[in-house]
Amino acid sequence: MPSEPRFTFGLWTVGNPGRDPFGEPTRAPLDPLDSVRRLAELGAWGISLHDNDLVPWGTGAAEEERIVSGLEAALQETGLGVGMATTNLFGHPAFKDGAFTSNDRGVRRAAIGKAMRAIDLGGRLGAEAFVFWGGREGTEVGTAKDPRDALERYREAIDVLADYSVSQGFGMRFAIEPKPNEPRGDIFLPTVGHALHFITTLARPDMVGVNPEVAHETMAGLSFHHGVGQALWAGKLFHIDLNGQRIGRYDQDFRFGAEDLKEAFHLVRLLERAGYEGPRHFDAHAYRTEDAEGVWEFARGCMATYRALAEAARRFDADPDVREAMEAASVAELGESTVGGDDPETLKGEVERLDALAARGYGNERLDRLAVEVLLGAR
Amino acid sequence: MPSEPRFTFGLWTVGNPGRDPFGEPTRAPLDPLDSVRRLAELGAWGISLHDNDLVPWGTGAAEEERIVSGLEAALQETGLGVGMATTNLFGHPAFKDGAFTSNDRGVRRAAIGKAMRAIDLGGRLGAEAFVFWGGREGTEVGTAKDPRDALERYREAIDVLADYSVSQGFGMRFAIEPKPNEPRGDIFLPTVGHALHFITTLARPDMVGVNPEVAHETMAGLSFHHGVGQALWAGKLFHIDLNGQRIGRYDQDFRFGAEDLKEAFHLVRLLERAGYEGPRHFDAHAYRTEDAEGVWEFARGCMATYRALAEAARRFDADPDVREAMEAASVAELGESTVGGDDPETLKGEVERLDALAARGYGNERLDRLAVEVLLGAR
Amino acid sequence: MPSEPRFTFGLWTVGNPGRDPFGEPTRAPLDPLDSVRRLAELGAWGISLHDNDLVPWGTGAAEEERIVSGLEAALQETGLGVGMATTNLFGHPAFKDGAFTSNDRGVRRAAIGKAMRAIDLGGRLGAEAFVFWGGREGTEVGTAKDPRDALERYREAIDVLADYSVSQGFGMRFAIEPKPNEPRGDIFLPTVGHALHFITTLARPDMVGVNPEVAHETMAGLSFHHGVGQALWAGKLFHIDLNGQRIGRYDQDFRFGAEDLKEAFHLVRLLERAGYEGPRHFDAHAYRTEDAEGVWEFARGCMATYRALAEAARRFDADPDVREAMEAASVAELGESTVGGDDPETLKGEVERLDALAARGYGNERLDRLAVEVLLGAR
Amino acid sequence: MPSEPRFTFGLWTVGNPGRDPFGEPTRAPLDPLDSVRRLAELGAWGISLHDNDLVPWGTGAAEEERIVSGLEAALQETGLGVGMATTNLFGHPAFKDGAFTSNDRGVRRAAIGKAMRAIDLGGRLGAEAFVFWGGREGTEVGTAKDPRDALERYREAIDVLADYSVSQGFGMRFAIEPKPNEPRGDIFLPTVGHALHFITTLARPDMVGVNPEVAHETMAGLSFHHGVGQALWAGKLFHIDLNGQRIGRYDQDFRFGAEDLKEAFHLVRLLERAGYEGPRHFDAHAYRTEDAEGVWEFARGCMATYRALAEAARRFDADPDVREAMEAASVAELGESTVGGDDPETLKGEVERLDALAARGYGNERLDRLAVEVLLGAR
Repeated sequence: MPSEPRFTFGLWTVGNPGRDPFGEPTRAPLDPLDSVRRLAELGAWGISLHDNDLVPWGTGAAEEERIVSGLEAALQETGLGVGMATTNLFGHPAFKDGAFTSNDRGVRRAAIGKAMRAIDLGGRLGAEAFVFWGGREGTEVGTAKDPRDALERYREAIDVLADYSVSQGFGMRFAIEPKPNEPRGDIFLPTVGHALHFITTLARPDMVGVNPEVAHETMAGLSFHHGVGQALWAGKLFHIDLNGQRIGRYDQDFRFGAEDLKEAFHLVRLLERAGYEGPRHFDAHAYRTEDAEGVWEFARGCMATYRALAEAARRFDADPDVREAMEAASVAELGESTVGGDDPETLKGEVERLDALAARGYGNERLDRLAVEVLLGAR
Repeated sequence: MPSEPRFTFGLWTVGNPGRDPFGEPTRAPLDPLDSVRRLAELGAWGISLHDNDLVPWGTGAAEEERIVSGLEAALQETGLGVGMATTNLFGHPAFKDGAFTSNDRGVRRAAIGKAMRAIDLGGRLGAEAFVFWGGREGTEVGTAKDPRDALERYREAIDVLADYSVSQGFGMRFAIEPKPNEPRGDIFLPTVGHALHFITTLARPDMVGVNPEVAHETMAGLSFHHGVGQALWAGKLFHIDLNGQRIGRYDQDFRFGAEDLKEAFHLVRLLERAGYEGPRHFDAHAYRTEDAEGVWEFARGCMATYRALAEAARRFDADPDVREAMEAASVAELGESTVGGDDPETLKGEVERLDALAARGYGNERLDRLAVEVLLGAR
Repeated sequence: MPSEPRFTFGLWTVGNPGRDPFGEPTRAPLDPLDSVRRLAELGAWGISLHDNDLVPWGTGAAEEERIVSGLEAALQETGLGVGMATTNLFGHPAFKDGAFTSNDRGVRRAAIGKAMRAIDLGGRLGAEAFVFWGGREGTEVGTAKDPRDALERYREAIDVLADYSVSQGFGMRFAIEPKPNEPRGDIFLPTVGHALHFITTLARPDMVGVNPEVAHETMAGLSFHHGVGQALWAGKLFHIDLNGQRIGRYDQDFRFGAEDLKEAFHLVRLLERAGYEGPRHFDAHAYRTEDAEGVWEFARGCMATYRALAEAARRFDADPDVREAMEAASVAELGESTVGGDDPETLKGEVERLDALAARGYGNERLDRLAVEVLLGAR
Repeated sequence: MPSEPRFTFGLWTVGNPGRDPFGEPTRAPLDPLDSVRRLAELGAWGISLHDNDLVPWGTGAAEEERIVSGLEAALQETGLGVGMATTNLFGHPAFKDGAFTSNDRGVRRAAIGKAMRAIDLGGRLGAEAFVFWGGREGTEVGTAKDPRDALERYREAIDVLADYSVSQGFGMRFAIEPKPNEPRGDIFLPTVGHALHFITTLARPDMVGVNPEVAHETMAGLSFHHGVGQALWAGKLFHIDLNGQRIGRYDQDFRFGAEDLKEAFHLVRLLERAGYEGPRHFDAHAYRTEDAEGVWEFARGCMATYRALAEAARRFDADPDVREAMEAASVAELGESTVGGDDPETLKGEVERLDALAARGYGNERLDRLAVEVLLGAR
């Protein structure tokens, strides 16, 4: 019997006021502590936060202490946990050319310093993971940055910060969140694959994994569950951002399941089957058309759709027709070693079998139709 | 003074007969030996080939020997080299569900066997690299393959084949060519990043690099020169496929430089500055509107545009206004270490400088406009 | 009580042998008469066809008569109808630069002649509609065709053919099928909107409508049901092509409902509510992984998913919670005249109300979540 | 000898402060009158404006008069003209569900009233065109709006406003600006084609044309110059928005020519050859990395690149090799009538010529390579 998934929401998600590039906010800001209480009522397991979601830029030390203590008390009171903490290295105009990869060394240094302060905050709050989304780490102008230099600086920053976190005794793992573009023309580490490779170059590779986001991989038209699959295969799925997005569009961050239900089903099925134990984190926001009540409807919808898809995945895997179709498609056979110690000459000889091997079908139409039937509640 | 780049063409590129999903061939097939001679006349350095470009599927052993010897003679005669060899694991109907990741173990074994035979051919011809493009390694149906199983089988295949190549004493390096989709709905190892990460999991990671293709990264809207930059940074650019492509479309394989001239400029500038010494390989074909003469016009165009962009890159880097704009954009400063041994408290303290650091501009409009002026021949 | 939708399949859809740009056919060709009988057994209402689906290019007159009579007999025997006929102006290499818009006047004339012959065939078979898909009407090279000339020639061709069809006493309506690209770099009349406008320039605009295809609008990332909505609003939805497609990819033509279930739901709901009475035509094909049985599974799946979504649409519209959410979103109010005869000064005065009008929410999160719940069978 | 193109800039373009969805402004706001003077110095012909670019929302009547008079004086002083005026129906939170197509009738009425006031302003300033960009006219939720109702309301609004403008004696023509998405999930009238069709349904179709924008058509991957070509063919190119954009991304509004130089060349060549006499309007902004000086560098770059491409187009058309290649591609032949009064039987008979017609090539590789050479300044 699977345990209930741990759902978390960023303070900035339910707190999103509905501002966009063409329009002013449509909703009043929320007090983070009110969000905590409301999320607890709705059944969330916890929250996540950027430093400046909680402590606005420019806050003095005493006021910061008051705010952070207030959050600690609210977490205590509600029993909510902190799934992850992160730092906002994209909002301040100083980061317009990047943070860890700004061409200006002073900006890079301040970015590392700001991340250190946020690590302190995350550590204090007991965050499980510390996420790096490098939204400004990119460029619109190809001649402005040698990508090799940028990756070198990115690596330097993560290495220094990993050392720092360990030196402070924090147990947080780091998770890098890739994105292909927006707000920069092209962002470094654009996909889960680029981030997974980057991690192998770090001084503390074991401490760092990825935080894939539905919207970000989907913008580039990549299969999200394949990307997550590669991260799981590598033991590197340290956190995950769930939302909804259409391919080839601006960053939409819609309610989880609002777009591409079948892909959402594949994702949830993979997470559940793989025994992923981290938070199911919703990095999404209510449509700009919504008032305050619509925000909570949005939050309920994220969790309800995840649960419904997890239940559909269990129904799918238990269905005898599905099992038969899986057999016909040789799904389990992909788990078997191909070579099994046979020698090259034997393998070369099997080339002669190709014409015969072409005859069979894989029954994928049936298998996929069964998935659609399960999704539509027809089985 | 840079040496002349080594240009190579696949036999299948100039030999492309203009068949597409909706129409029959518009050109007669070419004799590979005629292609070799014609490419030599045009000034190419060499060729590349799939096993079945040279030796059609189903050819008997004696005829195969005659064909291969004929190619060896033509290479000898013309002085052309072999930039890379590869194996066709996508054309035969047996590969409809994949080759190294087919759900059918028999297909997987035959695929490995076929690759071994092609490695023998590549080794015999003195190919510098052996490329793996896994065009059929994917699926349209998310429940038909666990992506973790697929990656495991992919790794097994490459490991076995690397051992085989070494055992035969061939010096070829392997290069994996990523692609996001087409002909499969979703292909495993969809981008340069995913392939770079995959390589770190192999038994012989040093022997394996990537073969990025303009069209493939561009289909997903990723910056091609950033992907190549990450490969260069990792020391993994073992081969490269040059062509032209619009974002978000079917695989077009247009003449190099036919689409997105500025990105092509960034790419050529990066390759030349990085001292990439491998072949500049054109994996492209003439428009279907062309007759035989149009094919050679296409081939001349690929090389001419590369040369023109390399020349533009040298002009750009030598231009005093560009140097001034680079200075204003702090381009070189990105090459400097950020931290330089300073302690965390110092770095945290620099956060206070952010407001001051926000004031400067980076002059990227000017820098990019200078690039456009150089491209347009105005400087 | 809605009547059963009339489902049709192109002969080329179930007959698709699984050839693609990178691989050979995976299935044997089907005899068109066998397809007719099998579709009848599966409950389809009828078929559609290109001239050369039935009569291969190069067939002599006597053989053509034998083939066509055979189809007539099979239709008679099975009771199937012909939803639409069309002409293949893309397969023959002569059409490599276009058909009605080829730069070669001889090709354009032959294309019109071929279409006339196909109109004769469609008229003889009692087709309801005659479709024009101009797959080759485009270019890869912007300087090769002035788009104004191309549209002028396109218009000339449709005008001549409409006159011809009327002169022969055929009652068929024409339907233009837009597509943005593939197999040409850019195709003229790329979207439903461009085709709707083009129709208004024709000599017989009343006789010509559109044939939108899910895959074609979706390739460009456009909302398919919005495009269909504009066609319905204009009284121009004369035919429709149903299938499945991901945004920004090669033309996939997957089983209807295989991709983006919510958009498919919106489409079916719109067609059913609008009382569209034309055929529900599946222009799709089985995955290349399938054998002969998988093809019929595919055909069953197309129809079953349409029926399931039509049933879901009825459930949705009958649900009291949905009605309440529709009310909260003021859905019906969009059907009311805005101005109602009020004068400009009154309307200008209402600008002062904007701040007050900003307060309300539209409850779209709830409305969309109810749609997801209906889709998932939870209500 | 072509006259100098008339360049215009929106007040919001040079005035863009660099705010984006993830970050705060990076530049101080500009005084519109300073922008006017600076644009005059740079050689622009004129400006364009939204009502609220000049008169902030909430300004009282006396202050509005002072501001407008100030602009009139600055225009008088500098000799600049007003290319177009428009109204901001997207920034105020009341428009979160649409303006002319909001589900709330009160919002729709206020939107029409606000547009009337802006028409008054445009008329007073002597604007040549009045543009409607319906950025909020769309939805994220398919069940929230019947697209037929939305189009009906859109038509009602434009009809009422056209009557109003005529009744006030203003000579302005209207121009509708399509966009596929952002800031709404899907926007009604997503492309030039949809807008051209919509215009044919209006009560005063002659008064209304389109305002295509490079970025908007390009987001959907459509050929911009083909869309403009259809508008020119229909006599409906009333205004044009020039900028730079990559396919399948957020709305970038980069400097004209910053992306896809060859497509920009095709566009400029088409506009110049067609004798388009309206303003060349730059709806773009400087990169967020820029300071105040970078903004003017950006503005200079837009105009300089347009001029350079117009000069390249003249060079291209005058080049003897290009003329020869045009002849080989039969470019002019597309301008000739196809049928010329021949009867159907003659045309049907020409089908027999198809095999012979397939033999020729169209020399498009050469033609396109010549375009690239002209672009690169090599001829």
